[in-house]
Amino acid sequence: MLASKLSSEILLKLEAILGSTYVFTDDETRNHYGHDETEDYVFPPSVVVKPANAQEISEIMKLANEYKIPVTPIGGRTGLSGGALSLQQGIGLSTERLNKILNIDEFNLQVIVEPAVITQVLREAVAEKNLFYPPDPSSQGSCWIGGNVAENAGGARAVKYGVTKDYVLNLEVVLPNGEIIWTGANTLKNTTGYNLTQLMVGSEGTLGIITKIVMKLLPKVNHNVLMLVPFYKANQACEAVSAIFRAGIVPSALEFMERDAIDWTLKFIPNLNVQVKDEVQAHLLIEVDGNYPEILFAEAEKIMTVVEQFEIDEVLFADSEEQKNALWKMRRSVAEAVKANSIYKEEDTVVPRYELPKLLAGIKEIGTKYGFKSVCYGHAGDGNLHVNIIKGEMTDENWNTEVTKGIREIFELTVSLKGTLSGEHGIGFVQKNYMNIAFSKTHLELMERIKYVFDPNIILNPGKIFPDNF
Amino acid sequence: MLASKLSSEILLKLEAILGSTYVFTDDETRNHYGHDETEDYVFPPSVVVKPANAQEISEIMKLANEYKIPVTPIGGRTGLSGGALSLQQGIGLSTERLNKILNIDEFNLQVIVEPAVITQVLREAVAEKNLFYPPDPSSQGSCWIGGNVAENAGGARAVKYGVTKDYVLNLEVVLPNGEIIWTGANTLKNTTGYNLTQLMVGSEGTLGIITKIVMKLLPKVNHNVLMLVPFYKANQACEAVSAIFRAGIVPSALEFMERDAIDWTLKFIPNLNVQVKDEVQAHLLIEVDGNYPEILFAEAEKIMTVVEQFEIDEVLFADSEEQKNALWKMRRSVAEAVKANSIYKEEDTVVPRYELPKLLAGIKEIGTKYGFKSVCYGHAGDGNLHVNIIKGEMTDENWNTEVTKGIREIFELTVSLKGTLSGEHGIGFVQKNYMNIAFSKTHLELMERIKYVFDPNIILNPGKIFPDNF
Repeated sequence: MLASKLSSEILLKLEAILGSTYVFTDDETRNHYGHDETEDYVFPPSVVVKPANAQEISEIMKLANEYKIPVTPIGGRTGLSGGALSLQQGIGLSTERLNKILNIDEFNLQVIVEPAVITQVLREAVAEKNLFYPPDPSSQGSCWIGGNVAENAGGARAVKYGVTKDYVLNLEVVLPNGEIIWTGANTLKNTTGYNLTQLMVGSEGTLGIITKIVMKLLPKVNHNVLMLVPFYKANQACEAVSAIFRAGIVPSALEFMERDAIDWTLKFIPNLNVQVKDEVQAHLLIEVDGNYPEILFAEAEKIMTVVEQFEIDEVLFADSEEQKNALWKMRRSVAEAVKANSIYKEEDTVVPRYELPKLLAGIKEIGTKYGFKSVCYGHAGDGNLHVNIIKGEMTDENWNTEVTKGIREIFELTVSLKGTLSGEHGIGFVQKNYMNIAFSKTHLELMERIKYVFDPNIILNPGKIFPDNF
Repeated sequence: MLASKLSSEILLKLEAILGSTYVFTDDETRNHYGHDETEDYVFPPSVVVKPANAQEISEIMKLANEYKIPVTPIGGRTGLSGGALSLQQGIGLSTERLNKILNIDEFNLQVIVEPAVITQVLREAVAEKNLFYPPDPSSQGSCWIGGNVAENAGGARAVKYGVTKDYVLNLEVVLPNGEIIWTGANTLKNTTGYNLTQLMVGSEGTLGIITKIVMKLLPKVNHNVLMLVPFYKANQACEAVSAIFRAGIVPSALEFMERDAIDWTLKFIPNLNVQVKDEVQAHLLIEVDGNYPEILFAEAEKIMTVVEQFEIDEVLFADSEEQKNALWKMRRSVAEAVKANSIYKEEDTVVPRYELPKLLAGIKEIGTKYGFKSVCYGHAGDGNLHVNIIKGEMTDENWNTEVTKGIREIFELTVSLKGTLSGEHGIGFVQKNYMNIAFSKTHLELMERIKYVFDPNIILNPGKIFPDNF
């Protein structure tokens, strides 16, 4: 049994480690750190602490381990699966003071960064040195790189460049018992013992607290071409996704937006200056990038040849940086626009990309069966479709019962299509009770025993990932 | 204590599972399966079994787990770290009958393959469908894809395209207790529980037996330019490696060969028709690839501008497929040529690429100190340098004492340069007692406890990875 409420003795010990300036028990702070971007959940910790470095985190973990106090690592609180919520109260550990880019190594094309650096800040800092950090979650302007690692974040460019995990070479981690390790080496190749680096990436703060991240970088890519293709039929937009790859093109982004996603976003951000005809059901936003503009035009031509095989409206080629930014702003604002429109639940389904039309059709059928509307959009090039289930006029009872059944069927569908529950948002606590759809009892027990290896007292981010019963 | 020698009761049970045709206890078969390409080690199993499928492997593992019999998975036996050697006798489990490419999925750019398919066969089969499986270990003509996954094999193209782990999406694995799981999903993105797929990749057959592999593929790349650059100074060749990336180029191969590596290879394969001037100390073999020849020539020009800043001899541009094949044959034959020349030990050092000159200089100094000659070559673009330590005229005593001390210092050097022990060959048993250079006791214990999670009786590939004492 964990000690959720903290005695004054524990608080004094925390103040001894951190100084009283960085220990907070007031309601305002606790509530602030008690929510992220996951629906409208609020789970405040009993105390918020803001350590300065790995050593202080180590001391906190030793204390928590001794007194069996739950500790929830808290990053930028932009997560969509509730990974940063202090479900069992205890200590909410904000990494916000570990916020420096420690070294941009132009000779090795690497960066060493602390977890609380905003992803976009990191991307821009390396770009100034002609380097490229590709992962670009839609929340890149506010999310932190530590959370990106913890959730294995993706983004639009993942389709060509891979997700966060593909850039993490080495991690400094404070283990639940307070010991500090580096998980690997700062090398591009490594077959030296078990890959604890990749075990840590995407473990959602349940195995250790990340305090330094070594990432590989690429040389900067200088040019791109961006096109918006309107489809009269949403399923044809999905079919076009796989056809583009089969034509030998690897786009640097290949995003899908259903009609409603665009409409709601254009309403939410009125000055975007994008026109959509009534007959259009869906859009693909397609980017190719590289260092040779003439090649990009040739590739865009090839893409045109592919999409013209489907029923499409006039293709918009962004002809200025301003227009490119507007199109990306539109795409990145869909989640916010949906949120502003209605209470909703977001599922992060992912399937092999050719299965997208089946997934989309299935989601709509399931919605009809259980009486909910959904707005779908996402990283179609990766087969990663965000399904926003809209509460709208639905009764609270149906919202809590029928929708849960419907989500279960959606996940059963993704798994039957060789996909899984989450492509880039993580399981956290909102999806955890669906885990038995993707995994057998044997498999879940393996994962649970790995959790025990790192955290025998289950103090670190308890209540996440694992279903309540399995 | 494991049961290394098998009773007739066990043999009968194995025959009941497999049929007597696939159970071998004769010396010839045992010796054949008792060695790989690791120096001259021979560790025959007590019995060799050749199961037909995952179900039979599951039955074998249940039996072995019940009777505590060691099981060593055996693939193509091309390994360089002894991963496939039956150190504790018991059952040698050859996966050779699981040798089919099950499905090349042109719609999702994926392949499902069994472990005993030769890597080159896989590469050629997908190429016929205009698809590209990039990893190309030098042994690709004989190594198996299952072993590539188990050892996280690399190869020349890893510098641009990544190593085996970057292509593995999902694995069917028989666990030591006989249960069969799929580790993940067939998706490009996945943040659904702990990444058991990546934990399995590179675990050297100690956590489970891989029976099916789902890999992602790329569209085929149609053109390349290959150049051989002779350097008068080996350290300048190393410096040029990092400079090429800093110029914004990501070559598809960037290989380093010391003078001796080339000389010995040209002697070993006499008709290669490559001329090397006396003054040349090292070569870089550099390839760029893509779909637009004019771009490749532009990139080759840029590379010329970089390498001309160093003291180089005339650059050879391969002007025919034949010449390209000859150059690659030369590069890929270095290991064999060294082997034919002398008893040797091969270390698979890896560092961040800019540290290569320091690594090379350090290795030579350490050689001088302990009285051994080394021949170095490898995937310099990845900072992955193969160090062949040559016995030559050295006494057996020095070979077994001084060289061990020297290797330890080489690894201490790699770790001090933020590198590690093995880039792509694995630890197996020949490097295991150096593991405490790279990892703390805490770290090794974490790995060991993960091993126990999968294999509480330590029956699967015992004696590998973990040092004898830590």
